[in-house]
Amino acid sequence: MINSPKIRKIVYGGDYNPEQWPEEVWHEDMRLFKEAGVDIVTLNVFSWAMLQPSEDEYDFSTLDRIMELVKENGLFVCMATSTAAHPAWMAKRHPDITRVESNGMKRSFGARHNSCPNSPTYRKYAPELARRLAERYKGFDNIVAWHVSNEFGGECYCENCAKAFREWVKSRYGTIEEVNRAWNTAFWSHTFYDFDEIVPADLRSEEFSWDGQLRTNFQGISLDYRRFLSDSMLECFKLERDELKKITPDIPVTTNLMGWYKPLDYKKWADEMDFVSWDNYPNYDSGPAYPAAVHDTMRGFKGGQPFCLMEQSPSVSNWHIYCKLKRPGVMRLWSWQAVAHGADTVMFFQMRRSIGACEKYHSALIDHAGRNDTRVFKEMAALGAELKKIGGQTLGTRIKADIAIVFDWENWWAAELSAGPSRLINYCSEVSSYYNALFSRNIAVDFIAPDGDMSKYKLVIAPLLYMNHEGYDERVREYVKGGGTYITTYFSGWVDDNDLVLPGGYPGKQKDILGIWVEESDALPEGEENSFIYKGTEYPAGTLCDIMHPEGAREIAVYEREFYSGTPVLTVNDFGSGRASYVGCHSNDAFYAAYLSDICAELGIEPVLDTPQDVEVTRRENDEYSFLFVLNHKDEKSEVRLREGGTDILTDKVYGSGDLLPLNRKGVAIIRTEKK
Amino acid sequence: MINSPKIRKIVYGGDYNPEQWPEEVWHEDMRLFKEAGVDIVTLNVFSWAMLQPSEDEYDFSTLDRIMELVKENGLFVCMATSTAAHPAWMAKRHPDITRVESNGMKRSFGARHNSCPNSPTYRKYAPELARRLAERYKGFDNIVAWHVSNEFGGECYCENCAKAFREWVKSRYGTIEEVNRAWNTAFWSHTFYDFDEIVPADLRSEEFSWDGQLRTNFQGISLDYRRFLSDSMLECFKLERDELKKITPDIPVTTNLMGWYKPLDYKKWADEMDFVSWDNYPNYDSGPAYPAAVHDTMRGFKGGQPFCLMEQSPSVSNWHIYCKLKRPGVMRLWSWQAVAHGADTVMFFQMRRSIGACEKYHSALIDHAGRNDTRVFKEMAALGAELKKIGGQTLGTRIKADIAIVFDWENWWAAELSAGPSRLINYCSEVSSYYNALFSRNIAVDFIAPDGDMSKYKLVIAPLLYMNHEGYDERVREYVKGGGTYITTYFSGWVDDNDLVLPGGYPGKQKDILGIWVEESDALPEGEENSFIYKGTEYPAGTLCDIMHPEGAREIAVYEREFYSGTPVLTVNDFGSGRASYVGCHSNDAFYAAYLSDICAELGIEPVLDTPQDVEVTRRENDEYSFLFVLNHKDEKSEVRLREGGTDILTDKVYGSGDLLPLNRKGVAIIRTEKK
Amino acid sequence: MINSPKIRKIVYGGDYNPEQWPEEVWHEDMRLFKEAGVDIVTLNVFSWAMLQPSEDEYDFSTLDRIMELVKENGLFVCMATSTAAHPAWMAKRHPDITRVESNGMKRSFGARHNSCPNSPTYRKYAPELARRLAERYKGFDNIVAWHVSNEFGGECYCENCAKAFREWVKSRYGTIEEVNRAWNTAFWSHTFYDFDEIVPADLRSEEFSWDGQLRTNFQGISLDYRRFLSDSMLECFKLERDELKKITPDIPVTTNLMGWYKPLDYKKWADEMDFVSWDNYPNYDSGPAYPAAVHDTMRGFKGGQPFCLMEQSPSVSNWHIYCKLKRPGVMRLWSWQAVAHGADTVMFFQMRRSIGACEKYHSALIDHAGRNDTRVFKEMAALGAELKKIGGQTLGTRIKADIAIVFDWENWWAAELSAGPSRLINYCSEVSSYYNALFSRNIAVDFIAPDGDMSKYKLVIAPLLYMNHEGYDERVREYVKGGGTYITTYFSGWVDDNDLVLPGGYPGKQKDILGIWVEESDALPEGEENSFIYKGTEYPAGTLCDIMHPEGAREIAVYEREFYSGTPVLTVNDFGSGRASYVGCHSNDAFYAAYLSDICAELGIEPVLDTPQDVEVTRRENDEYSFLFVLNHKDEKSEVRLREGGTDILTDKVYGSGDLLPLNRKGVAIIRTEKK
Repeated sequence: MINSPKIRKIVYGGDYNPEQWPEEVWHEDMRLFKEAGVDIVTLNVFSWAMLQPSEDEYDFSTLDRIMELVKENGLFVCMATSTAAHPAWMAKRHPDITRVESNGMKRSFGARHNSCPNSPTYRKYAPELARRLAERYKGFDNIVAWHVSNEFGGECYCENCAKAFREWVKSRYGTIEEVNRAWNTAFWSHTFYDFDEIVPADLRSEEFSWDGQLRTNFQGISLDYRRFLSDSMLECFKLERDELKKITPDIPVTTNLMGWYKPLDYKKWADEMDFVSWDNYPNYDSGPAYPAAVHDTMRGFKGGQPFCLMEQSPSVSNWHIYCKLKRPGVMRLWSWQAVAHGADTVMFFQMRRSIGACEKYHSALIDHAGRNDTRVFKEMAALGAELKKIGGQTLGTRIKADIAIVFDWENWWAAELSAGPSRLINYCSEVSSYYNALFSRNIAVDFIAPDGDMSKYKLVIAPLLYMNHEGYDERVREYVKGGGTYITTYFSGWVDDNDLVLPGGYPGKQKDILGIWVEESDALPEGEENSFIYKGTEYPAGTLCDIMHPEGAREIAVYEREFYSGTPVLTVNDFGSGRASYVGCHSNDAFYAAYLSDICAELGIEPVLDTPQDVEVTRRENDEYSFLFVLNHKDEKSEVRLREGGTDILTDKVYGSGDLLPLNRKGVAIIRTEKK
Repeated sequence: MINSPKIRKIVYGGDYNPEQWPEEVWHEDMRLFKEAGVDIVTLNVFSWAMLQPSEDEYDFSTLDRIMELVKENGLFVCMATSTAAHPAWMAKRHPDITRVESNGMKRSFGARHNSCPNSPTYRKYAPELARRLAERYKGFDNIVAWHVSNEFGGECYCENCAKAFREWVKSRYGTIEEVNRAWNTAFWSHTFYDFDEIVPADLRSEEFSWDGQLRTNFQGISLDYRRFLSDSMLECFKLERDELKKITPDIPVTTNLMGWYKPLDYKKWADEMDFVSWDNYPNYDSGPAYPAAVHDTMRGFKGGQPFCLMEQSPSVSNWHIYCKLKRPGVMRLWSWQAVAHGADTVMFFQMRRSIGACEKYHSALIDHAGRNDTRVFKEMAALGAELKKIGGQTLGTRIKADIAIVFDWENWWAAELSAGPSRLINYCSEVSSYYNALFSRNIAVDFIAPDGDMSKYKLVIAPLLYMNHEGYDERVREYVKGGGTYITTYFSGWVDDNDLVLPGGYPGKQKDILGIWVEESDALPEGEENSFIYKGTEYPAGTLCDIMHPEGAREIAVYEREFYSGTPVLTVNDFGSGRASYVGCHSNDAFYAAYLSDICAELGIEPVLDTPQDVEVTRRENDEYSFLFVLNHKDEKSEVRLREGGTDILTDKVYGSGDLLPLNRKGVAIIRTEKK
Repeated sequence: MINSPKIRKIVYGGDYNPEQWPEEVWHEDMRLFKEAGVDIVTLNVFSWAMLQPSEDEYDFSTLDRIMELVKENGLFVCMATSTAAHPAWMAKRHPDITRVESNGMKRSFGARHNSCPNSPTYRKYAPELARRLAERYKGFDNIVAWHVSNEFGGECYCENCAKAFREWVKSRYGTIEEVNRAWNTAFWSHTFYDFDEIVPADLRSEEFSWDGQLRTNFQGISLDYRRFLSDSMLECFKLERDELKKITPDIPVTTNLMGWYKPLDYKKWADEMDFVSWDNYPNYDSGPAYPAAVHDTMRGFKGGQPFCLMEQSPSVSNWHIYCKLKRPGVMRLWSWQAVAHGADTVMFFQMRRSIGACEKYHSALIDHAGRNDTRVFKEMAALGAELKKIGGQTLGTRIKADIAIVFDWENWWAAELSAGPSRLINYCSEVSSYYNALFSRNIAVDFIAPDGDMSKYKLVIAPLLYMNHEGYDERVREYVKGGGTYITTYFSGWVDDNDLVLPGGYPGKQKDILGIWVEESDALPEGEENSFIYKGTEYPAGTLCDIMHPEGAREIAVYEREFYSGTPVLTVNDFGSGRASYVGCHSNDAFYAAYLSDICAELGIEPVLDTPQDVEVTRRENDEYSFLFVLNHKDEKSEVRLREGGTDILTDKVYGSGDLLPLNRKGVAIIRTEKK
C-alpha cells in the first residue's frame, strides 16, 4: 500500500465486514463503493470464529466468495489475519488464551484483543491462521498489504506471562545480581536470589492507585514489565509476519497503530513493520494540533517515509462519551490533514454500519438507512472524486523539517511512574506544549527516537526527557559540539534506563552540556505558580520549578517569587560549536510561542508560510514538485497570501506568487509548484 | 390486604421484629401499637436463622408466641417467609448459596439478599421454609397476605448462574444459529458453536466501566443476562408462592417492590403477584413528583387496581448519606399522597428501632427512647386516628386518566447500555420530564407497558422508547389510525428486542406513523445546547438533536443553530384518524409544560383541579363517590378553589361548589362528593 | 533513647541504609554526618532479605561492618529488626506470609509491610530474626533502642486471619450466645450457631463502598475485626519485643507510630512499648495545629513522658501528590515544634537519598548530588549545631496542662462506621475543632484515653465521643461530681462498646450528667446550616443538629431556624460540684474560640502567653527551669512580649520580664527561666 508499484493514487476505502451481512447486501455495497470512489477494502479483521469453527477445522468458503467479489469489482484488499479476537470455543477449550488482569481477575470469553500474548494456544493458532490465509489467497494480486491482527494492546498478568517475564528478565540481565542492581532491590528488602522469585509488577505486588493515578513501589520492575508486555505482543506480531513472509514475501506487512498509545513502544514495533499504519480518532474538541503531532510521530518512525492512514471515522465514533457529529467538511479536512503530514492513503472504519453490538453507532460510509443521499455518503463520495482527480501526484512525496522533537515511550512510562515529584508530570502534554508552538507557526517538525539521527536538524527539542538512555547524553554532546542547538526541560536527564538516579546532581550526565546544576525542584500544586520575565513579558512557572546553579550557562530569565526568586529558570550554554538551552519549569503557550519563535529566527528556521490563526500549511515535495497543503480549520472563510505561485490541484486554479488564496470554511487547497 | 373482605379500612402498621427483643418489650409494643392505631404488622421478614437452626431442624417456638400475641391484640399479619437472608451455617455448609460478583469475587457470609437465585440449596430450602410456614400458620385467620422474601434484587455471576443462563438462552432461542443472529455474533468473531461456550455478561467477559458508567461490548448478551437474572429471581418468588398457594390458596401473595428499580422487570413480576406492594423511600430533596410517578407506575401494573404501600420511613432512612429528618407533617402528607395515587394501605419500616447493626438509625414508630411522647410517635398516632376516622370509604376506589405514559424495563436497560450516542441518555429522567409537566398541572396519568391497552387513552406518550418490541409499532399504528394521539421522542424506535438496529433509517418501523426520517443525531456534550422557538418562546435543545427529514409530517419548530439550523425538531403527522408527534431532542421543563398543556387543551384533557404550585390534587372514585385528595407540599399555608362541593372526610367540614378550601402547611384534605 | 542515661542531649540523625550503597560511600557519609552534627542513626530497617538469604541461612557480615563503622564514628544506634518487609524467597516458598485484601485478592510479592500478621511463617521467622540480632549485637553499648519492624499497619483477610479471628472472638465473648448478643445478630438472620460460621468483616461479607466511604452492614463485626487486626499486629510486635527483652533487657523497645493512624489502636500499643516514637509527615498545607495535636496525642500515651520524633522529612516527602519543598526554616521550625510538644529527639527519614525505587525522591540530609553545600544540608547542619549548643537542658522536661481532650481509636472506628446519621461525621475533624481553638490561644492540652485519669484536669473535653465504653459514664460522673468541668457534643454517648444503642434516649447513660435528653438529630446536608446566637454573635449549626429536651440543664443558646427553632443547642448542667456542657451541633472555628475562651476564663485556665496569630508558644519545665518555646509559623517577622524574663538558649540573649522578643520569619526562641 505504501511504495507499492500497483498503486497509482491515494487509495480510498476502509474496513469492510460483509460476513456480518446477507450476500444480497454485498452487491449493493459494490454499487455504492463505486459511487463513492472506494478502491480499497480492509477485509477479514474479525473472522477467526468463522474461519476456524473448531480445533482442526477451517472454513474459508465465505471469505472465498468475498475475495472473488471484491476482485471482480476492481478493489484492492488490505488483508487482515483475523487474530485480534479469538473464538469462543477456543476460550472454553484452552483457557490459557484469555487474559488475567492486574488484580488477578481471570477473564472468561468476550470483547476483543482478548488473547494473552504468552498463551501457548494463541501462539500456536494465530500464526497458523496467518499461514493458511497466505497460502489460500496468495494468488490474489489485488492484495496490497497484510494487516496483522488489529490494534494490538492491553495487558496480561497470568502465570504464563509471569514465566515468560522471568525468561525475559534473565535474557535482559543475565544474572540475578545484575537484576538486583538494576532494580535497586536492596531497597525494602527486595533482593532476589533466584529468577523464580520474580513476579509481574501488578496490583498484587508493587502497583497501586494513588489519587486516581497508577503508582508503583518499584519503578525498575514496573518499567521492565511494560517493556516485556510490549515485546511479548511484538513477538506475536512477528510470529504472524514471519509466516506471511514465507509465502508472500512481496506483500508488505503492517499492523494498525493507535498514535500516542502508551502501553506499546511503537518505535520498536515500527522497526519490524514494512510500513507504518495508524488509526486516527481525535475527540471532537481536540483541535488540529494533536492529530498533526501524532501524524508526524508516525511519519518519523521510518525516517519520513509516507504512512498509511488506516482508520478514521466518517462522522461519530461510538465510544466517545458524547458522539458529536463531525461537522460538514471536517471529515474531508482531516483526511487531507493526514495526507498533508505524510499519509499516502485515506481509509476509514467503516464501510457499512453494523446493526448489533458495541460499534453499531460508529459512523460509516453506508449508514443504517442504507442510502446514498445521506450527508456523510455525499461528503465521502465528493472526497472520493477529489482523490480520483488528483491521482498519484503526491504519492511518495516527503516533508523536510529543520527541527526534531525527541519522543520516547520508555521515557513516557518512567516519567509518569516516578513516584514524585508531582502528579502534574505529563509527558505528552509537555511535548505538545513545544510542538503546538511550532505547529501554530507552520514550522515543520520531525519526531525522532532518542537514538535517532540528530545531525540532520538545526534544532533538537527534548521536552521532559527524564530518562537518559545509555549513550544518549553522548549523542547530544556530539550533536551540540558539532554546532547543533538543543533544548531540554525540567525533569530531564535524571535517571538511567532503569530509573536509577544518575548521581552527582541533576540532570546527571547532561550537566556539562547544559552548563547547570539543579539542586532542588519545587513541585507547585495545581493552581499555584511562580513567574519569570522573558524579553519584557511575564510568564507563569509551574508544575516543577527547578532551582539551579549555572555552571557555565548564561541566565535568560529568573524566577520572580519565592525563596528562589532571582535564580535562573531559563538558561543557555555555549558548548562546542552549538548551544544547549534549558527550560526549568512548565510555562504557558504564549511563552513557548515566543521562545521558540526567537530560537527559530536565530537559527534561520522558517515557517512554510505565514497564515491566519487556525489555517495550517504543510509542504510535501519530491524532486520535481512541491505541494503546499493549505487547511482552513476555522468555521469561517479565510485566505492566505502565497509566497510562490502554483496550481491548486483540487480546482485547477492557477495562482501567481503573492496572490491571495481564498479558503472556504473548513476549506482545503493543494498548490502544486514546479521546482526550478 | 388488597381486596380482602377481612379488611374494612386502610390498614396501618408495618415491619415488626419482636424476635430482636426480649419478650417483656413485646407487651409494651402492643400497648403502644394500640395507642398509635396500628392494626397490621409485617412479621418474620428476617428470621430464617432462628427458624431453621440447622440442616434438618426447624424451631417455630418464638414465632408461635409472637403470632399468638399479635392475634390476641387484634392485629392483622402480613406474613413474610424470611428467605431474604440465609443463615450463616447454610453459607458455610453450602457455599453455592452465596453470590459471585461481576468481577468474579465470591461472597462469603453476610449482608442480606445474599442468596444466588440459581443455587440448588436456596431453591431447595427457601420454598421448603415457605411450605412449613404455611402449614404451621394456616389456621391464623388474621394473616391477610404472604410477603415472599423481601426486596428481591442484586445480581449473581456464579457457575450455577452461568449454567442456568445457558438453559435460559436455549429455551429463548432454540438454536445456536438463532442466538448468533440475535446477538449479532458475526461482529468481533463471537460466533458460538455450542451453548456451552456462552458465559455470563460481566466484568470478566463483555462489560466494563467507562467514565463511571457500566458499558458492554455486546448489548444483546448483556440485555439477555439482565432478563435472565430478573427471571431467575422471579422463579424463586414463584417457587415460594406456589408452595404457599397449595396450602393457603385464599391468602394473597405479594413481595415488596422498590419502585423504579432497574435490575428487575417489575411488570413481569407484577403479573405473578396477587397484588402489588412497594417500598417508598424518596430522598429528602426529591420533591413530590417523583414518588407520585412511581406510585402511578405501581398502580399501572394491575390495570389501576389499588396497591399496597408496604414500607416508608416514619422519619429518617439510615442509608441516606444525610439522614435529614422528615419535617413535621411530611410523614402524614406522603402517606396520604400514596393513598391519593392508589394505595390502600399505609405501612412503614419499622415499628421499633433496633439497637444494633446497620438499620439502627432508621426511624421507627417506637424510637430508642421507647417513649410515646416523641414527635414521630405523636404524628404517627395522629395519622392512625385519622385513618380510623375515615374507615374504609376510599378502599377500592380508582383513578381515571386520559393519558398513558409507556414505561418499559427492557427499554431502560437497552437505552442506557447502547454504547453511544451519549452518556447523557437517561431513561427515567426523560420519562420524568413528561410526567412532571402533567403532574404539575394535576392531570392524571397512567403508566402502561409497551403491550398495554392504548385504546382507553386520548394521549399516549412514549419518551425515549429506544426499543421497538416485536409488534409495538403495529399497536401504535392501530391506535393512531383509530384516532389516538401519540408522542414519542429522540432515540425512540431504533432497535428491536435484541438491540439490533431496525434498518432503513430511524426510527425504524415507526417512520410511517411519525412521517419522518431521522438521518443523523447530534450528541451535544454537557453544557452545549442548540435551541428552537415554539409558539414564540425559545427553548433549549440538547442531549441528542435529531436531524430529520419530514416524510409527511408537519414542522412545528426548527433548530436555530448549527449546520442543521432550520431543519425540524418538533413535528406532527396526521395518520389515519389520529396524529403522531415527535420531539427530536431533550428540552427543559418549561417546554414540556407548554407543549403538553397545548396538546391536552386540544384533546380536551382537563386537570383534576387548578391549584397553586406545589399543591397537588388527585381524584379516586367509585360508583357512588368521588374523593378529591388535596395535598399541600409547600412549607406555608395555601388554598384552592373547589369546582364541586363536598365534605372533607378528615375534618367533616362541608364545602360548596366554588368555595375556597384552606390548607395548612403540609396540609391534606379529602373532599368526598356524592355522584349524581 | 528516651530516659536513657547514655544520652545527654537531643539526639539528631535518622534512618540510614548503607547496605544500599557501596562501602566507599559509607566513609563519606561518616564525614558528612560529623559535619551535620548527626549523632544517631536508625539502622537495619529493611534488610531481612540480606540477613536471611534462605530458610536456614543467616548472613550478618554487612551489618557487622556497618555496626563497627558507626561505633567507631561515635554514633548511637536505633536498631531496627528488619521485619517490615519479608524476603521474596519467603513469599514464594511460604505463600501464607503474603496478605489477602478485603475483596479476596491474594497478594504475591512486593511493596513492604506485606506480611500477614497471623501467618505462621511470619510469626516464626520475625521473632527469630529479632532474637538473632539481639544475640549478635548485644555487646554494642551504643545501641540505645530497639525499633521493632517499621510503621506497622495495613490489613489482612486471609484464611489464617479468619481462623485467628474466630479464636479472638471466642476469647473475647466466651460463648456463641454472647457473640450473638454483642453483634445483635437477630437482625437480618445473622445468628451464629458455631464459631466456625464467623467470617472476617470485609468486602466479601458485610462491607461495601457507599458514596466513596466504607460502610458495613454489621457494625459489631466490623468493629471487632478492626480490634482483632490491631491486636494481631500488636501480638507480632510483642513476639519480637519479648525475644529482645530476654537478651537485652536494658535496651528500651519501641516501634514507630504514625500519629492519627486509624487502623491501629495506638493507646493499647503504647502500653506495650518502652517509649513512644512516631513519624511526622504533615502535608505542605496542613498548618501548625495539626502536627501539634498529634504530638500532644503521642505525649499523652505515657502520661506526658517525652517521646521520640523518629522520622520527619528534611524537605519533600515523595508520596505527596505535589512534592513542594519545605521552605527555608521550616524543617528547623517543625523540629523545634516537636520538641516544644514533648519530643526528646530530632530524627529524620533519611540520611542519604536512595537512587532507585519509590522513595528516591524523598528528601535526605545527603542528596543525590552528594554535596554538603545544598540548602537542605546547610540547614540541617545548622540545626545540628544548635542542638549541640543547647545540650541536654530540655531533656525530660514536662508540659503541664489543665485541659484534657479524650481521644479514642475505637470511638473513631465506631463513629465513622455507624451507617448514619451523616456522611459528614468526622471524628478527627471534630477533635481538631476543639483542639485548634485552644492551640490558637497557646493553651496547653493533654490527650487522654477514655479510661485516663481526669482528676488532674480543670476541664475535660470529649468531642464526638459516640461510644460510651463500659464504665466511662461512671468515670465522668465522678469527675464532674467532684468539681470537674466536662464538655461533650452531638453524637456522643449513644452506644456501648459493641455499637449497640444504649436505650432510653440519647445520650444513653450520660443523660443525667448532662441534664438533657436528645430526641432527634437532624443531619443537614453539606452546604445547609442552621444557626444560633451565643453571647450576641450568630454562629452556624450543622452536620448534626440535636433536638433536645433539657432535663435539668440550662439553655445557653437555641436554634434560630427550622421546626426546632427556639430549642436548645448549647446547654450546661450543674452536677455535683462540677458542671457538664453540651454542644448539640458542629459549628465553626470562631465559635469554638469564643466558647472555649469563655470557659477557660471561668475556670482560670491561662494561655502560656498571648501572641500574635500563628506565633505558637509552649512551655516545658522541670523542677529547676521553665523553657518557653516560641515558634513563629508566619512568613514574616514577628515579636511577642514576654511575661517572665529569661535567656534564649539558642542565642544566649537575655530578656527581662515584659521585654519584646523579636522573631525572624519561621524563627524560634527558647527562653529558659529559672524557677524561684
